[in-house]
Amino acid sequence: MVATNNKPNKYKVVGTRPIRHDGADKVTGRAKYAGDLPSTNILFGKILRSPHAHAVIKSIDTSAAEKLDGVKAAVTAKDLPETIFGPNGERPKTSGDLATDLKRLRDGILASEKITFKGQAIAGIVATTAHQAEEAAKHIKVEYEVLDAVTDVKAAMAENAPILHEDLEMVEFDEPTGKKGTNIAEHFQHKAGDVEKGFAESDIIIEREFDTATVHQGYIEPHNCTVQWRDDGRIHIWNSCQGPFQIRDATAEILDVKATDVKLTPLEIGGGFGGKFEPYGEPIAALLSKKAGNKPVKISMTRAEEFECTGPTPGSYIKVKMGCTKEGKLIAGTAYLAYEAGGFPGSPVSAAAECVFAPYDIPNFIVDGYDVVVNKPKTAAYRAPGATNAEFASETIVDEMAERLGIDPIEFRMKNATAEGLRKVDGTKYSSIGCKEVLEATKNHPHYSAPLDGANKGRGVSIGYWMNAGLQSAVNIAVNGDGTINLTEGSPDIGGSRTGIAMQAAEILGISAEDVYPSVVDTDSIGFTFGTGGSRTTFATGWAAIEAAKDVKTQMIERAALIWGEDSSSITMEDGIIKSSSNKDLQFTFKELAAELNDTGGPITGRGAVDPKGVGAAFGSLIVDTHVDPETGKVTVERVTSIQDVGTAIHPSYVEGQMQGGTAQGIGWALNEEYFMNTSGVMTNSTFLDYRVPTALDLPMIDTQIVEVPNPGHPLGVRGVGEVNIVPPPAAIANAIYRSVGVRMQQLPMHPGAIVETIKNNKGS
Amino acid sequence: MVATNNKPNKYKVVGTRPIRHDGADKVTGRAKYAGDLPSTNILFGKILRSPHAHAVIKSIDTSAAEKLDGVKAAVTAKDLPETIFGPNGERPKTSGDLATDLKRLRDGILASEKITFKGQAIAGIVATTAHQAEEAAKHIKVEYEVLDAVTDVKAAMAENAPILHEDLEMVEFDEPTGKKGTNIAEHFQHKAGDVEKGFAESDIIIEREFDTATVHQGYIEPHNCTVQWRDDGRIHIWNSCQGPFQIRDATAEILDVKATDVKLTPLEIGGGFGGKFEPYGEPIAALLSKKAGNKPVKISMTRAEEFECTGPTPGSYIKVKMGCTKEGKLIAGTAYLAYEAGGFPGSPVSAAAECVFAPYDIPNFIVDGYDVVVNKPKTAAYRAPGATNAEFASETIVDEMAERLGIDPIEFRMKNATAEGLRKVDGTKYSSIGCKEVLEATKNHPHYSAPLDGANKGRGVSIGYWMNAGLQSAVNIAVNGDGTINLTEGSPDIGGSRTGIAMQAAEILGISAEDVYPSVVDTDSIGFTFGTGGSRTTFATGWAAIEAAKDVKTQMIERAALIWGEDSSSITMEDGIIKSSSNKDLQFTFKELAAELNDTGGPITGRGAVDPKGVGAAFGSLIVDTHVDPETGKVTVERVTSIQDVGTAIHPSYVEGQMQGGTAQGIGWALNEEYFMNTSGVMTNSTFLDYRVPTALDLPMIDTQIVEVPNPGHPLGVRGVGEVNIVPPPAAIANAIYRSVGVRMQQLPMHPGAIVETIKNNKGS
Repeated sequence: MVATNNKPNKYKVVGTRPIRHDGADKVTGRAKYAGDLPSTNILFGKILRSPHAHAVIKSIDTSAAEKLDGVKAAVTAKDLPETIFGPNGERPKTSGDLATDLKRLRDGILASEKITFKGQAIAGIVATTAHQAEEAAKHIKVEYEVLDAVTDVKAAMAENAPILHEDLEMVEFDEPTGKKGTNIAEHFQHKAGDVEKGFAESDIIIEREFDTATVHQGYIEPHNCTVQWRDDGRIHIWNSCQGPFQIRDATAEILDVKATDVKLTPLEIGGGFGGKFEPYGEPIAALLSKKAGNKPVKISMTRAEEFECTGPTPGSYIKVKMGCTKEGKLIAGTAYLAYEAGGFPGSPVSAAAECVFAPYDIPNFIVDGYDVVVNKPKTAAYRAPGATNAEFASETIVDEMAERLGIDPIEFRMKNATAEGLRKVDGTKYSSIGCKEVLEATKNHPHYSAPLDGANKGRGVSIGYWMNAGLQSAVNIAVNGDGTINLTEGSPDIGGSRTGIAMQAAEILGISAEDVYPSVVDTDSIGFTFGTGGSRTTFATGWAAIEAAKDVKTQMIERAALIWGEDSSSITMEDGIIKSSSNKDLQFTFKELAAELNDTGGPITGRGAVDPKGVGAAFGSLIVDTHVDPETGKVTVERVTSIQDVGTAIHPSYVEGQMQGGTAQGIGWALNEEYFMNTSGVMTNSTFLDYRVPTALDLPMIDTQIVEVPNPGHPLGVRGVGEVNIVPPPAAIANAIYRSVGVRMQQLPMHPGAIVETIKNNKGS
Repeated sequence: MVATNNKPNKYKVVGTRPIRHDGADKVTGRAKYAGDLPSTNILFGKILRSPHAHAVIKSIDTSAAEKLDGVKAAVTAKDLPETIFGPNGERPKTSGDLATDLKRLRDGILASEKITFKGQAIAGIVATTAHQAEEAAKHIKVEYEVLDAVTDVKAAMAENAPILHEDLEMVEFDEPTGKKGTNIAEHFQHKAGDVEKGFAESDIIIEREFDTATVHQGYIEPHNCTVQWRDDGRIHIWNSCQGPFQIRDATAEILDVKATDVKLTPLEIGGGFGGKFEPYGEPIAALLSKKAGNKPVKISMTRAEEFECTGPTPGSYIKVKMGCTKEGKLIAGTAYLAYEAGGFPGSPVSAAAECVFAPYDIPNFIVDGYDVVVNKPKTAAYRAPGATNAEFASETIVDEMAERLGIDPIEFRMKNATAEGLRKVDGTKYSSIGCKEVLEATKNHPHYSAPLDGANKGRGVSIGYWMNAGLQSAVNIAVNGDGTINLTEGSPDIGGSRTGIAMQAAEILGISAEDVYPSVVDTDSIGFTFGTGGSRTTFATGWAAIEAAKDVKTQMIERAALIWGEDSSSITMEDGIIKSSSNKDLQFTFKELAAELNDTGGPITGRGAVDPKGVGAAFGSLIVDTHVDPETGKVTVERVTSIQDVGTAIHPSYVEGQMQGGTAQGIGWALNEEYFMNTSGVMTNSTFLDYRVPTALDLPMIDTQIVEVPNPGHPLGVRGVGEVNIVPPPAAIANAIYRSVGVRMQQLPMHPGAIVETIKNNKGS
């Protein structure tokens, strides 16, 4: 359902819905993905991975494998550059130490001594065919000393837990503590006011504990790359990724080569959601290419490898306590956030801490975050990483408070809603945000007041927060003689971003979106551009496009001045018309002037390169109706409406697509998705048959309502739309389940068994 | 032999000899050419061509061919857009008429009514395999009415010659004449002084007639393209070409689509020399792709197709008369230049007219040029197109004059040499040129005074002129965090131009050539860039690179100012060091500042787009020693030295490479190469076995001497080096043959039979 605000659109292109430039290619199956790369004259790599979640590598012997038919080379961690820890070869000092980070980065690519998760790469092997490589990998002999695994954050934090990294020194409040023999990589705290006083003054205090499971981004296209380490020392990577420059730089760091000796050509991407920012096969394929005579080597992951060896978003243990007055004013909160980092440090707990109380103005709070290593794959980003777990906790407590006070849950949230100028969790202040506007729109949405008929049905709501990101982007524009423009950018297209960026340039130049030919180019052909993620692409790459368009506009005006013999200060360009204020007969359309360029001084090109600071934070809410079968625990999601402040919606259809996609993923996370780990630390459901992503049959149509509170920090008011929509579903569904069958769920996923058991326990209590 | 001037190099990068960026790829065979494109999921096209040189097409029937196994579609001229001649569908009026030009352009792609050369395309057919397509083409039935062919320019100009285009209206002195029923498309004239008076005052007058044969560029890689006409209407071409934007625009015009709906990706090029600026298979492959369900279609030419169906450089008939005083001052000249255009109008005779007397200051002259259609393939550009034929004539006459006066041939030329400020043939004036400097260097070269030993040996010299070109180019630069730069350009790399362009950017930025990563990108990813040819690439694309580098430099200075809190006017950047004049402690190397960019405001990118006017004309000379066997007529080229004013030599090795390459081609043209046409207008030697390009065994090492008279019209003094070196060889060799065996040759090629016959006739006379 289209539901942009009914205000007149002040823009010509922004806010319209042109067909995306990559549309025909994608619907006809002709778009080129990395897996489509020619399979002629290339070799195929396969990675041998640890069957154990926690083990010491005693030896690796690739000699038998290397003798097999078709096998060209094998590599292990010994083929990676040596990581120097200090002038005398010292062991690393702290977990923040650069050399340690690099050693861990390399160990994550090919394990040198120890295995900290099942599936960690041990060796790479390359052969003429993929089948030969797969067979050969089985003949690599590895001796392990198997250790006890710990895959749960609470267990990992317990006394006498198996220790993953003996050298790991805990950091507390940004300082190394000297404490080793722990799985806690870091503990930090945010604090405001006087929490004890706050709770003392509270009329209602609710404290709950929550457990959430590890979930995967579940993109359709597995990681795959083709890499050639060329004779002249340059490394060329073709892959599926979100961050070409980041993978370029990380691969270079891992291989100890100059960043720009790596050239990365991103192909179309079949989903990423945060999971395609890290190199996995790329450095291994590079080493194999070099050893195998500089031939290109292709490595593709299986689905099981995706689940077991790439970064999911973490499981977590969360304890939240909130206090409010009887009038419904939140005055105190504490949050204990323990996040699983996986086999190496680095969970998104710091982002979680920023989000847990973000929608509310709470004068007194303490938020404690713990980054904890466990024997699971190293986590990676996944749509608003860390926020969903944390806000599941706070948003179900808020719902319970509102219920106890007999206040409408939206009213309760509006009473406490944060606003511009108020304190964020981290101590900085909000700039213009749309928290209240989203709550208002939620309350006013017809869905919120629609009658619910039948038994065991309930409606839940929740709101979510995400910071969004800025970071660097570059765009180049060239004006073509027929009045179209070429636009080159470095942001892999996710969800129609090519078009959203093209539209911003078109808006500035007064031309149509169809008159822009956008291309996503390789890392050799554009300025540094941070990856497509963090809801930043339409915001920052769009801004670079605006700057490039303005650069073109200035030159178009100067050219008209030259042609007319006028002073450029008397010439304007509005809506694609270049006019002289001193002579009304002097006028060019953009196309007319474009046709003159080559004969009046040469082509015009423009450039934009930005690192914009005015990032606009995002709030999104969800209204969800559920039916719960109390006998089986089956939850049917009957109606869903996703509401989000997007700043300005550049292309409303693709904004809606993001809102629908994030909501669908949030519903899967809420109800179905989880890593089942056995006691040895092995995932037992690493297929899409057993790891249950929602299908079209599981979901109703997801309605959307776009709220537009323009971000004053962006020339066109853009905030970014990719992430916050995943945050509200688990809490909203939990709140709907409560209203359907009277139980408050404190775990994710809220699968049928858990619901039945909770109902049973509830009745018993 | 390296022989740059011994003056100190005022540049840091310019004038050095770094390894070319594409070197490793090319020597290891890993560079990608259009023929290397994946052959999976594509179809193969074949073109049916006329077996007759001159014929009317009565009917074309593709139905039987289309029924064959694997055949997907066939196209004929009927599939091309209709060419509208006027509001009432009138026939074209003049040969300059746009619609007529377009009709001829389309007829050159697929003949609609008439065949004007053997090999002209009649139909295209596409099938699953190349063999199926080849077989199917044989089953296309075409009925012809065969007409008499005329393949020689003099015969084509004669009364009662077969007329190629009944609608062709002769243009004379830039005006349509109303005269039809002629093969002369155009006659023009350049004139100065009083020629009759000049000849009357001359002490010596020499008039000679010359016939030169049609010759081909002989590039190693045949034309080939893969074209997909996509579902969304865009056409993507991957091919081997010199002018991506020109072939884009021409293909669009032929197919009546918007220019930018065509995207052209140029791959590496295996030679062009002017012959790869025109579309041949591209529009046919596009039509076939559209008809065959939008699949990519590949069309590759055979060598015979290259000779018979692409553009060679024309055969010509030339009559030149020159007069000088007894002191050796040239005072009068006439030139009658009749050039074969091939099956459609458009020979390079106008360029020939500009060159024929160009090295000399002759006060009185008339130059008449005739563009004449004949039943041969439509000519295309070939290295200084038109100049070699014309200067062969004038430079052998000059040699004869010098001989008659007993003046050294270089001395004679120096007496008459043109210079800055003197009149060009077309009435404009020379800017700074190196004509005298080249003659001086020729005279002083050790080769010129080296003794010649043995019988039937002689030494010849000549000088050649070429205008060179400017035209549009665009370059983008992005600064990388490691202090390297990415440089994107639209000029396919011929002879190391990537490196020559990269070096100019490096010079401005004070970094090394190796710190530049140049990429040749597609037409969607860069501003309009005229093709690689006309000796323009190092000049104009290099200039665009300089502008882009200056744009970067300005921003680097501004960024340093921002970081230091200084005014940017107090900051300089020289040799890659950014310094503050107000504080000596403030200094960045380029690399240091590059590393700061992302954290101090974002990446820096630069753009340059130019249409430079200060084109520097080129003079080049040749000294050649021959041995001629008077019995067999075999000419052995024993020693060769090519001398050329290149302005500034950016990369001397690649300049020398151009000089050697042009000289080698000029020697082939002089001695061996020609189209043998039978009376039906069929070329009888369309293979490299029968069309004799010189091999390494035919040539001695070609020495070079670079003369550098910097072009004040270019920031670094560049003139351009690709063309003029082909001009002097035929005349220099003719002059050497004269000194070897006493006969003056007046035809090209000067093959053994012709020499023996001339010796015989000479003795007889």
